[in-house]
Amino acid sequence: MKTKLIKPVTLKGFRDYLPNQMMAREQLIETARRTYRSFGFSPIDTPALEYSEILLGKGGAETDKQMFRFIDQGGRDVSLRFDLTIPFARFAAQHLQEINTPFKRYHIGTVWRAEKPQKGRYREFMQCDFDTIGTDSNTADVETLLVIHDLLENIGFSEFTIRVNHRCILNGLLEQIGLGDRATGVLRALDKLTKVGPDGVLAEMTEQVGATRQQAERVVEVTGIKDGTPQVILDRVESLLGGSQQGISGVHCLRELFDACRTVGIPDDRVKLDVSIARGLDYYTGTIYETFLTNLPEIGSVCSGGRYDNLADLFTRHKLPGVGASLGLDRLLAAMDELGMIETASTPALVLVTLFDTKRIGDYLRIGRELRRAGIETEVYPDGRPLKKQLKYANRKGFRIALIAGTDEFAAGTWQVKNLRRAEQQAVSEADLVGTVRRILSATG
Amino acid sequence: MKTKLIKPVTLKGFRDYLPNQMMAREQLIETARRTYRSFGFSPIDTPALEYSEILLGKGGAETDKQMFRFIDQGGRDVSLRFDLTIPFARFAAQHLQEINTPFKRYHIGTVWRAEKPQKGRYREFMQCDFDTIGTDSNTADVETLLVIHDLLENIGFSEFTIRVNHRCILNGLLEQIGLGDRATGVLRALDKLTKVGPDGVLAEMTEQVGATRQQAERVVEVTGIKDGTPQVILDRVESLLGGSQQGISGVHCLRELFDACRTVGIPDDRVKLDVSIARGLDYYTGTIYETFLTNLPEIGSVCSGGRYDNLADLFTRHKLPGVGASLGLDRLLAAMDELGMIETASTPALVLVTLFDTKRIGDYLRIGRELRRAGIETEVYPDGRPLKKQLKYANRKGFRIALIAGTDEFAAGTWQVKNLRRAEQQAVSEADLVGTVRRILSATG
Repeated sequence: MKTKLIKPVTLKGFRDYLPNQMMAREQLIETARRTYRSFGFSPIDTPALEYSEILLGKGGAETDKQMFRFIDQGGRDVSLRFDLTIPFARFAAQHLQEINTPFKRYHIGTVWRAEKPQKGRYREFMQCDFDTIGTDSNTADVETLLVIHDLLENIGFSEFTIRVNHRCILNGLLEQIGLGDRATGVLRALDKLTKVGPDGVLAEMTEQVGATRQQAERVVEVTGIKDGTPQVILDRVESLLGGSQQGISGVHCLRELFDACRTVGIPDDRVKLDVSIARGLDYYTGTIYETFLTNLPEIGSVCSGGRYDNLADLFTRHKLPGVGASLGLDRLLAAMDELGMIETASTPALVLVTLFDTKRIGDYLRIGRELRRAGIETEVYPDGRPLKKQLKYANRKGFRIALIAGTDEFAAGTWQVKNLRRAEQQAVSEADLVGTVRRILSATG
Repeated sequence: MKTKLIKPVTLKGFRDYLPNQMMAREQLIETARRTYRSFGFSPIDTPALEYSEILLGKGGAETDKQMFRFIDQGGRDVSLRFDLTIPFARFAAQHLQEINTPFKRYHIGTVWRAEKPQKGRYREFMQCDFDTIGTDSNTADVETLLVIHDLLENIGFSEFTIRVNHRCILNGLLEQIGLGDRATGVLRALDKLTKVGPDGVLAEMTEQVGATRQQAERVVEVTGIKDGTPQVILDRVESLLGGSQQGISGVHCLRELFDACRTVGIPDDRVKLDVSIARGLDYYTGTIYETFLTNLPEIGSVCSGGRYDNLADLFTRHKLPGVGASLGLDRLLAAMDELGMIETASTPALVLVTLFDTKRIGDYLRIGRELRRAGIETEVYPDGRPLKKQLKYANRKGFRIALIAGTDEFAAGTWQVKNLRRAEQQAVSEADLVGTVRRILSATG
């Protein structure tokens, strides 16, 4: 009697990663890790499950509803983390004595949100954050920009723009024109600039936020300054801030940032000043970053972040200012796919050793090992099926080279080396095998 | 008024990874990944959350109780995965058309079990599995052993033993002496051999399993054959199997395995035949692997696995035989810690650029970038604090070199290079900086 089968399906909003998707993801993660480490950021990890009280923090009703929350076997109210920021705040407060500030960490981890699934949005996804905490030095802000720059470059992008701004400029401006107490509403309206245009923003500010026409126009005027070098823009902005201390401190930070970028050698066109970006979050208090791909601006910012005054005020009285950003891993993968930057092979190996004479599996495995020792990823086909089938397998999975040996080759001490991209084949002695394979691999790039 | 703080704690049985622990873990994962890939295994991933029905499968009461299980917002009965095997079975059944057998995959992922926490055991831990499915060829079994071997060697172990056996030998023996229907009880008793000794095993077999004294003695006799080369042991075992077809097929598989190991060049002392290992799980049907560290046998097997007849019979009628093993990541990390194989530095960077003249942050960041471009991980200290404090920070975190430059150095175009391990310092011109740093790093290993 046959037992009933269970239908193999993933949950709504969740997905499997097949080899070619997973290889692209692993490569991206590896590049991020290498970049973060090159700047001295250390990895940390925190549990997927935490006390709900900790993750709820001061969260809004929106994130609360999105949390996977339940009572565990021990009667504890627990939740799956929905970002890496709150766990980091809890971590920093808990391990304050051990971490030795300034503390630079990266954290690459999965988070869960019970959002309504839609195209390209899942209930489980990976975040990839880096932060420097325990310092309010602008040097860390400049470095954050350098990390974002190197990250994009190392991933393989050459055309991108990092837009920066400083919250003190906006706050100083609002304070100076008497809108300091309506900052949240004003910034929320400003965030819609690219969507609704200056008139839409003016309308929202006057009709909903309660600004006067004159106040709203001043905001749109200052944040609309776009022409000229960052230095020219900053001079104009400064002249319009009416001597606001806060605003001028923001201008100074950005001047230092643009000067340092030039000294460091970052191409001018990759960093742009945009006085209009606010990044809705109340969280940010200083420099703000957004990153756009020149050829795919419509997917939005792929790496965003900023400076904040106090990371962990929910958990400790110790003040922890910091600055950091987050790489939008899945968004970037989608972009890379669209730009044809993702390999189609579904195997990490380059060479397939076909299996012909099942009495000599030791020899096939031995040659696999020899290539591996020369640094060449090599798979040995396990079954003595017809060669045609094995080569079909090799082509479907995207191998570059197939090696073949039967009675004649073993007698002569040779291997048939088949270049799968060109359908060329040659016999080489075993002593020349590694060299030949290397030459073919580097020629077919 | 101060708001009440939330106490920053992790859940019972869960833990944070601090930088030095996390760096060791990342390195281990990276080595595993590199090794698996070198053999042509591809990465996959599956969701942390699945339908409980899928994860419960035919699981026993033990694993059921250990699952973090709850009803989600959509009313679904869901659970966190407690291993990577059932998700892989579900994955293979679901994507059968896409994966193209033979299919070799690795899966490195977190799993959750609500076990009673005890020393070294957590409710969240990482598994690191590899499998070849869709083939019953013994070549895959031999290769599994080669993967385990290279894995241990690449991690940095030179003294270890992989113990192998074949379930067909045990099953053939039991069948032949009339204990075929009591296999589970016999194997469970046999599993305790190292704990209770042959007399204990004999007692359990006769008193609890219901074997005769003669039957039990025969099992202990055959499984106790240990002297001589694998070939000698296999000859003796074969002669005692009384012509059992099943038993002899197991002997043949192991003969081929040991022959291939020799051809491939695996040192003889690293692979041992142990006819007594059964690995309790009913799951295994062929070759069985266990791996022990010579200097830490007490921690048990660090890499175990075996061959199975059918991976996904819960989810598909398509038969998927396979073979694989799992690296005990956390157990191995504990072992490496005990053997002094883990670095104590808590930063991935080797060089700290100290910050002296806060007006020249561009120059400090520029030199950081130059070293990074030469492949040397370099951190720039963000604050202009007293040099003594910056050097204390460098020593505490485990940097190897500190770079120092003030007014004099900038005027002369030089950098002070401080070797932190030897407390030596020298001035070098900026042109010689990368070379000098490289020399110091390679000299201090």
